[in-house]
Amino acid sequence: MSASNKIKVGIVGGTGYTGVELLRMLTLHPHAEVVMATSRKDAGTRLDAMFQSLRGRCDLVFSDTATADLTQCDVVFFATPHGVAMADAPKLLAKGVKVIDLAADFRYRDVAQFEKTYKMTHSCPELIAQSAYGLVELNRDAIKKANLIGNPGCYPTTMQIGFMPLLKAGIVDAAHLIADCKTGISGGGKKEELGFLYCEASDNVEAYGVSGHRHHGETVARLQEFTSEKVGLLFTPHLTPMIRGMFSSLYARLTKPTTNDELQALFEAAYHGEQFIDVMPFGSYPETRSTRGSNMLRLALHRPQDGDMVLVLVAQDNVMKGAAGAAVQCMNVMFGFDEAAGLSTLPLSP
Amino acid sequence: MSASNKIKVGIVGGTGYTGVELLRMLTLHPHAEVVMATSRKDAGTRLDAMFQSLRGRCDLVFSDTATADLTQCDVVFFATPHGVAMADAPKLLAKGVKVIDLAADFRYRDVAQFEKTYKMTHSCPELIAQSAYGLVELNRDAIKKANLIGNPGCYPTTMQIGFMPLLKAGIVDAAHLIADCKTGISGGGKKEELGFLYCEASDNVEAYGVSGHRHHGETVARLQEFTSEKVGLLFTPHLTPMIRGMFSSLYARLTKPTTNDELQALFEAAYHGEQFIDVMPFGSYPETRSTRGSNMLRLALHRPQDGDMVLVLVAQDNVMKGAAGAAVQCMNVMFGFDEAAGLSTLPLSP
Amino acid sequence: MSASNKIKVGIVGGTGYTGVELLRMLTLHPHAEVVMATSRKDAGTRLDAMFQSLRGRCDLVFSDTATADLTQCDVVFFATPHGVAMADAPKLLAKGVKVIDLAADFRYRDVAQFEKTYKMTHSCPELIAQSAYGLVELNRDAIKKANLIGNPGCYPTTMQIGFMPLLKAGIVDAAHLIADCKTGISGGGKKEELGFLYCEASDNVEAYGVSGHRHHGETVARLQEFTSEKVGLLFTPHLTPMIRGMFSSLYARLTKPTTNDELQALFEAAYHGEQFIDVMPFGSYPETRSTRGSNMLRLALHRPQDGDMVLVLVAQDNVMKGAAGAAVQCMNVMFGFDEAAGLSTLPLSP
Amino acid sequence: MSASNKIKVGIVGGTGYTGVELLRMLTLHPHAEVVMATSRKDAGTRLDAMFQSLRGRCDLVFSDTATADLTQCDVVFFATPHGVAMADAPKLLAKGVKVIDLAADFRYRDVAQFEKTYKMTHSCPELIAQSAYGLVELNRDAIKKANLIGNPGCYPTTMQIGFMPLLKAGIVDAAHLIADCKTGISGGGKKEELGFLYCEASDNVEAYGVSGHRHHGETVARLQEFTSEKVGLLFTPHLTPMIRGMFSSLYARLTKPTTNDELQALFEAAYHGEQFIDVMPFGSYPETRSTRGSNMLRLALHRPQDGDMVLVLVAQDNVMKGAAGAAVQCMNVMFGFDEAAGLSTLPLSP
Repeated sequence: MSASNKIKVGIVGGTGYTGVELLRMLTLHPHAEVVMATSRKDAGTRLDAMFQSLRGRCDLVFSDTATADLTQCDVVFFATPHGVAMADAPKLLAKGVKVIDLAADFRYRDVAQFEKTYKMTHSCPELIAQSAYGLVELNRDAIKKANLIGNPGCYPTTMQIGFMPLLKAGIVDAAHLIADCKTGISGGGKKEELGFLYCEASDNVEAYGVSGHRHHGETVARLQEFTSEKVGLLFTPHLTPMIRGMFSSLYARLTKPTTNDELQALFEAAYHGEQFIDVMPFGSYPETRSTRGSNMLRLALHRPQDGDMVLVLVAQDNVMKGAAGAAVQCMNVMFGFDEAAGLSTLPLSP
Repeated sequence: MSASNKIKVGIVGGTGYTGVELLRMLTLHPHAEVVMATSRKDAGTRLDAMFQSLRGRCDLVFSDTATADLTQCDVVFFATPHGVAMADAPKLLAKGVKVIDLAADFRYRDVAQFEKTYKMTHSCPELIAQSAYGLVELNRDAIKKANLIGNPGCYPTTMQIGFMPLLKAGIVDAAHLIADCKTGISGGGKKEELGFLYCEASDNVEAYGVSGHRHHGETVARLQEFTSEKVGLLFTPHLTPMIRGMFSSLYARLTKPTTNDELQALFEAAYHGEQFIDVMPFGSYPETRSTRGSNMLRLALHRPQDGDMVLVLVAQDNVMKGAAGAAVQCMNVMFGFDEAAGLSTLPLSP
Repeated sequence: MSASNKIKVGIVGGTGYTGVELLRMLTLHPHAEVVMATSRKDAGTRLDAMFQSLRGRCDLVFSDTATADLTQCDVVFFATPHGVAMADAPKLLAKGVKVIDLAADFRYRDVAQFEKTYKMTHSCPELIAQSAYGLVELNRDAIKKANLIGNPGCYPTTMQIGFMPLLKAGIVDAAHLIADCKTGISGGGKKEELGFLYCEASDNVEAYGVSGHRHHGETVARLQEFTSEKVGLLFTPHLTPMIRGMFSSLYARLTKPTTNDELQALFEAAYHGEQFIDVMPFGSYPETRSTRGSNMLRLALHRPQDGDMVLVLVAQDNVMKGAAGAAVQCMNVMFGFDEAAGLSTLPLSP
Repeated sequence: MSASNKIKVGIVGGTGYTGVELLRMLTLHPHAEVVMATSRKDAGTRLDAMFQSLRGRCDLVFSDTATADLTQCDVVFFATPHGVAMADAPKLLAKGVKVIDLAADFRYRDVAQFEKTYKMTHSCPELIAQSAYGLVELNRDAIKKANLIGNPGCYPTTMQIGFMPLLKAGIVDAAHLIADCKTGISGGGKKEELGFLYCEASDNVEAYGVSGHRHHGETVARLQEFTSEKVGLLFTPHLTPMIRGMFSSLYARLTKPTTNDELQALFEAAYHGEQFIDVMPFGSYPETRSTRGSNMLRLALHRPQDGDMVLVLVAQDNVMKGAAGAAVQCMNVMFGFDEAAGLSTLPLSP
């Protein structure tokens, strides 16, 4: 712990959207201080020259990823592409630095599945066993004890939070789950790609990745832990014209007679006391904008035409609860801070 | 037919989004001319004073709905709220004027269902039998002979076009169809309601009407005509921040072994020769923006994880193929014009 | 001061955009607590039933404006239409309650000008003399001593901050100032009007109010205090498709030889130490999005073609620095709190 | 002229936004047919594989720019970066093929100014004298006789149309013109640049290029032709979150007593009979959305506070009247077609 009585935080890859979001939150954190942000391409550049929003609030200069001494940090966030964290994690962990990877390197327990999905060899598979999956509400105890976190993907968070109570209760057909998900454009990251241009992405809705989005395998593997039945998931991601926001419409067929009250009670019990999960009244309509800029995930249950299907509507801010917010929440749990430290800002409305 | 050799067209309720869209197309129509547009509230106002887009292209003044003599028209479009067309249709039909209603008055064969859904008494149930449902691709012959058209709702068009081939072929579980639909904001019409404000509707996705959207009954009734099995439909409409555009993700479980090639062939055969239905290659991704301002509906089939579910992605412009364009298409069929007359504009891109 | 050691805050008219923004900030305020929010129409409704963003963060219920006892508060914000605050201010002030009006009732020193502009009689003109204009950076001392604040309009804030140093220095033609201003749609408030609909306001830019926007007189009166020359201002407001954000491009003709360095030094001196005014390097480009959700106003100077014109570019969040943020800043000054208390959130990026 | 009795059109660089817009219009053109579109990078690709909007309406495949025989065309449009047209124009003109360049190669009469502005050597300065500047309303006679057109930039079109009548009448201070212009994002072209990403460009307004936008010199040179006074122009371009649309607020100081009626009469006379210039009533508010997808430019005059400044508000679709529409209009004039051929589509509303 630093002289200032705050833990020292490093951010690798601070030039993307999750990087600047970590900075936005950590600047307000009572127990943590960002002391270093690194970049391969932008070393020497002030962070506020890249992000005008940081002017007056951040004096950091990007360090060179290759030479920066991250071992002086208490914890390092990797807001990088897949494959970066696993290269650096072993030596950081060996020096007692905790590591939180916002990419996929430590999301999978099954190395082979990771390697197949991301088409790269895992350089430190031995660390996977000691890593924890960073979805606090579903894995708090493991996170408390872990020094290495694989932060969940944005889509998987909504699908796990939404399907878990149903699967654990054993009341739905686990083999035929459907997740029709809609993301804001920031979900794709700060990439100069054609499809993310304003003139291509605005005033448009389209599906993508139906044949094999990388979050499919991550989600199925995690959902499988909630049930002994074989999980089958049809996952359709869509791009929608929002900066931030993710809305998942989850469909499951009930296999046992269940009343709406029982369904509602199931979810309220599952997330009782969770300050970042808002189980709304049965039949409500969560709105992505009501989560904008906050770490809150909202969900509501529906029973269309009083039939045998249950519909779970889930809304979150993909950059916050879907990425950087969840990572800070993990940090808080790992260090024994108030779980909401640095995460207290309310959603921006309108 | 008028002296100008063009049919005379009247538009009742020309102040809404479908009204101005009818004007946009009909101004370019080689065989039709709008001679009258009526409004209850805005009688005496020039149309181009309300719609700046019409300046220089339209000299009409709104007539008073109460006093306008629509019997001089060859055809009258009702771009009005539900319940208006049924009040005027009998006398217009009696005078030989064809009627195309863009609202719901003549969408239902079952009067009771209409009355229950729209909470109003139908004033001319006897006309329903002679009316035709205005989805040309599914009902062309009836439309040819009809003088009274109930134009389909925007959502129902996508669901019928997308599910019909599967239901007719008898290869899916008709009792568990799922339609996860996303509409642009214009789908709600030009109404001064809170939810349609820019600051409420932009940068946001949310579901609505799950417990009973009025298009649910319309769609189920029509889908039922394609199969002897009992149709069950779970329909989840969503609001997305687009001006125009509708994207429907349709899910059905295959009940018979079917290859992807067979699925594709089924759809290509069903819509062979249709100039406003674009059956894209298997596994494609239709985009709503590729239909912006045009009468084209695009669809593509997917078979996620090569499982037993088929996913049909459908995109259209809700104001065009979902409303005004479909209505003009009906008019063309009714009068024996080229079906694409007035509908030849290409989508606006970008 | 309340038992909790926090001042008690009341909000009259908490149902609009500035109302919910006050709540967003004050919920995080270390020295203040909102104890009451009133509404004429929505008394009895929970605030978080109206604003989903407040769920889990606010347990208040709207009190009835007519019967609520606001005298228990230490300070009351009026986030109401013009004319409301002046009706209640006298009795609140008499009871020792401070009043901050976000509308125009106390923005004018000249009652006649107020009455002409807002077409209503001022009910307590005698209070105007003791009120202070709530633009902290230009009026801090008066605000410190005042119990009654007229919070500035959003446009006037940008114009005063941008023109003040030039006028005070006496180096520009005060009679021919031009302000070409662009606002996000929330600037018009949460009103169910046609022009604010998503389908009308998005993908569009237009000017309005050129012949006499109400902020024109307010601004001219304030600018006149910085110079003995007669101020002439051409003010062109524009609507642009943003939720929040205001961008003012201010033009003035230099009447005395001045170098760019001198211009820059003038502004840096004028706003030295101001934590909510970011005087960017000469020739920079402020972006409205870099102020989103924050109380920061950014400005930069330009000297096009090295001619005799100076261009001041000013960006702010119209809901924050342009309204609710400025009001909280006033409260902080009035009560001797840290001026940034409750205003420490960083801009949302992206 | 081709066997089909339509002229043969070639498009070089059909992969950008102006390229696809040319195709959108020319597909509907009664006297022209696109027979060839070329691309350096995408030769062999079907156009409708790149632009889904063209599916069903265009069977062309991109030819290789290097080998395509454009001499079989009657006219070739260059929708390319600056510098491409001048390389090919000489040989095409020699073969009797007309050339319309949408880039800057032939916009300048002064070669030195072109070379300085675009930092490239002009390869065929001898052709400039025989080229015509393609702003039909200001240069129709020259265009009629020309075989080589330099199509104007989008901003310059609005500034020339808006300032011309004032300058020709000699009633304004030509040395201090101000143009505060706002463009939609497509104005930057289909470029994979950071600033054009959805997450960077939406919900934001910012200025750019104040110190020297390339359209500044083009505009000043053209404006200078309307007056013997020395023209001075302060031009501030802004990015606003629209796909299409351009809004220019033009400010000029009156140097001679002029009534509002006289001003209005001046503009009505200047553009009498022009079908693509809509001189709106004095004091009106043109909206960019009322020009969306059309070739119409709308303008209105204002006299703020009845002072000595005149404000001209100009709205157009930057992709149409600001680029591709203007180019087709030129083609129509060059070939003696109806000037509106292929340009008859109405604006998309909403």
